[in-house]
Amino acid sequence: MLKLNNRAATLCDEIARNADTLRVASQWTDSGTELWDFGIDTAGGLEAGQYLARICMAGLGQVGLVPGNEKLWHGPAIQVATDQPVAACMASQYAGWEINHNGFFAMGSGPIRAVAEVEPLFEEIGYHESANRCFGVLESGKLPTDAVCRYLAEQCGMAPDRITLFIAPTSSQAGNVQVVARSVETALHKLHELEFDLSRIESGWGVAPLPPVAADDLAGIGRTNDAILYGGEAVLYVRGDDASLKRLGPKIPSSSSADYGRPFADIFAEYKHDFYSIDRGLFSTAVVTFVNLDTGNTHHFGSFLPEVLQKSFGG
Amino acid sequence: MLKLNNRAATLCDEIARNADTLRVASQWTDSGTELWDFGIDTAGGLEAGQYLARICMAGLGQVGLVPGNEKLWHGPAIQVATDQPVAACMASQYAGWEINHNGFFAMGSGPIRAVAEVEPLFEEIGYHESANRCFGVLESGKLPTDAVCRYLAEQCGMAPDRITLFIAPTSSQAGNVQVVARSVETALHKLHELEFDLSRIESGWGVAPLPPVAADDLAGIGRTNDAILYGGEAVLYVRGDDASLKRLGPKIPSSSSADYGRPFADIFAEYKHDFYSIDRGLFSTAVVTFVNLDTGNTHHFGSFLPEVLQKSFGG
Amino acid sequence: MLKLNNRAATLCDEIARNADTLRVASQWTDSGTELWDFGIDTAGGLEAGQYLARICMAGLGQVGLVPGNEKLWHGPAIQVATDQPVAACMASQYAGWEINHNGFFAMGSGPIRAVAEVEPLFEEIGYHESANRCFGVLESGKLPTDAVCRYLAEQCGMAPDRITLFIAPTSSQAGNVQVVARSVETALHKLHELEFDLSRIESGWGVAPLPPVAADDLAGIGRTNDAILYGGEAVLYVRGDDASLKRLGPKIPSSSSADYGRPFADIFAEYKHDFYSIDRGLFSTAVVTFVNLDTGNTHHFGSFLPEVLQKSFGG
Repeated sequence: MLKLNNRAATLCDEIARNADTLRVASQWTDSGTELWDFGIDTAGGLEAGQYLARICMAGLGQVGLVPGNEKLWHGPAIQVATDQPVAACMASQYAGWEINHNGFFAMGSGPIRAVAEVEPLFEEIGYHESANRCFGVLESGKLPTDAVCRYLAEQCGMAPDRITLFIAPTSSQAGNVQVVARSVETALHKLHELEFDLSRIESGWGVAPLPPVAADDLAGIGRTNDAILYGGEAVLYVRGDDASLKRLGPKIPSSSSADYGRPFADIFAEYKHDFYSIDRGLFSTAVVTFVNLDTGNTHHFGSFLPEVLQKSFGG
Repeated sequence: MLKLNNRAATLCDEIARNADTLRVASQWTDSGTELWDFGIDTAGGLEAGQYLARICMAGLGQVGLVPGNEKLWHGPAIQVATDQPVAACMASQYAGWEINHNGFFAMGSGPIRAVAEVEPLFEEIGYHESANRCFGVLESGKLPTDAVCRYLAEQCGMAPDRITLFIAPTSSQAGNVQVVARSVETALHKLHELEFDLSRIESGWGVAPLPPVAADDLAGIGRTNDAILYGGEAVLYVRGDDASLKRLGPKIPSSSSADYGRPFADIFAEYKHDFYSIDRGLFSTAVVTFVNLDTGNTHHFGSFLPEVLQKSFGG
Repeated sequence: MLKLNNRAATLCDEIARNADTLRVASQWTDSGTELWDFGIDTAGGLEAGQYLARICMAGLGQVGLVPGNEKLWHGPAIQVATDQPVAACMASQYAGWEINHNGFFAMGSGPIRAVAEVEPLFEEIGYHESANRCFGVLESGKLPTDAVCRYLAEQCGMAPDRITLFIAPTSSQAGNVQVVARSVETALHKLHELEFDLSRIESGWGVAPLPPVAADDLAGIGRTNDAILYGGEAVLYVRGDDASLKRLGPKIPSSSSADYGRPFADIFAEYKHDFYSIDRGLFSTAVVTFVNLDTGNTHHFGSFLPEVLQKSFGG
């Protein structure tokens, strides 16, 4: 057992020791839930964002800044790699917990999901974890209230003071980084939507350009998704047959979706800004490469669309 | 308070533990100043250079080797990132302390500057630090004498045995790396020359090609400056209005200077090799991108000039 | 003395602490040799491969994933850097110990070689090490038997329970990474073949595309060698005269070999799959750049051959 929440605890200690230079701060709700502000009333930054992405992945992966592909966008990109793709990306990083309670809305990710298990995904991937301390990441422009924290604790079957949450708006620097660190995760999630057996995926590597931080969360959701959809790349190291990869392959990259080709902000508006009502098939990297470890064959699908990035990022 | 010198102390301990593999060595002057030779009578190297750059930035940033942009030059480039740009780059990394004493000349940088405060810059940026141990970096081809160290100590109001200096010639491997790690710093300094409010800058990321190490310091000064001026890129994450960025923007990259377009060695010769007499407006990266965190707008200025790099680097 | 095996011991402790996430496992032979399986009956992965490369280099270098040059191949590349090139690459990383005992065949590398000293190379480079624990890397599809381990121990003049071996097939993820981390090493070895004085080389940096993992070791040997021969780059920081660099330079890159231009698998077949019978002159990076630290001159040789990579990698 990988003990996702234990691994996040180690990262949390590191964050606490470096809180001043990371420009993040923690506080406690009345019931004792620890809230780490990564960009609401704090500045956060590029390094805070990398820590946030690591927490999302329960420390099961490398996350770093690299120079971006200049054909796509100026400046840095976010590179990720993991040898525990299902645990890191599906059981932890995927923002699959839609938190909507007492008027508070957030996309929930991180290893807390593997304890709460409110999503059918966990039965599907066969992952369960019990923990004596839980760590979650909320993509939100507001800190959750004590009532929201108690509700989350209840979903986990735990006392609120055993729960630590990291909160960053999409339009903060840290929030911007953590979403763009989802290249491998989105490719995996797309495969899961297509009922691909995720246990075939042994490792993943990905990179996506870091967009300019948006002025508000709605614009931020647009840009960070565009970074993945039109500038993101994933290489997946898989086991098994080639036929299934050839058959599913063309459906994996974002270009397989009817909505492909427009900035995500436009698509999002069409769906009345309800993230979870959008066709799940849209979310994937622009480019996906499968390396079949059993046959030695490579299957490469999709292509970048820098024009949409330029329109979306406004360069 | 970030305690720049305390942070450098931690790095110094790490250097001491790895001195043999970093190929650096320390000695003490008669009055007890610790001198770390990073490339005079020692070999130093690529990793020593990265440590030197981290000392320059008081540990407030990530410094690393990355593959360079092949359109600019062969081999590696130096990438930096910081979420404390004013403290890391202005209060520490900027080589603003012109040391000229008893025939010894060096450009002084590192957190010792924030204690000595001999530069008007410190009043301008409102940064002051007291410390019980001070760390400085000297770009110089010679180790300072005990008299020079006592002079520096006096400027700091401290005993000479509380001071640790790291010395590397520009034409050493470590010196070469530490200058090229100044992409974000030079862009910040240029903004400061233009009286831009540096407190608006929240984070910075930069990259510049690592030039071939020169045979002598004069040639080294030429090449390392060319790496920044004609091949350096900086992305600055800022707060505030767009109007000031649009207005100042065209003046930020090196291309705004009348001297732009010639190898720095030629320009330096014209100014009779007096670094501090050159128009401060020249020093900046070739490319500067502002990401406005408040408005979500991006402003991109400047362009690379690989022809000058090729002429300067002699490939 | 750098104590290569002591350095590997530190890395081995780190591997042991993270064995579950690295997906590697250890066992002991009857005589007490510790065998770390990095991809035979274990999954291993991208990070295991980076650790394996670090063990190969006795920890004397930086090894990491970076985005690859898209003109060469999709996905990541492996970047290495070292300031101890002869110790790291020749005394340790070079797979110069041909192990062929009792029907077990493996290419042996790592710091154990500096203790065994069965190769004439050690007298040539003047490196010797005694150690109380030895660490070796075997590129092999099978774990060595106890008899093989006792034979290796005997060659080292040590008890079998003082020996730790890391074993990875070329066609495993970790094996794939560790071979591709040999960009600087192959360039150095080629220079040694040409009787260049290796003590002139102060530092090295290199990068090579990570090929798709092959289905079997023979195909893996083909692809990983192609990654170096046709997509690998090395920058060597050297001392001494330029004349020797200009004279030897054109002979350094792989393009100097008569066999250059064909996938390595074809060449290997011609030599009846006997690695050590192939002209040593073939093994080098596609591109080699010398930076002369004494004269400041740069000498650049060779060029990439992406067509062969595409044919070999099958993209």
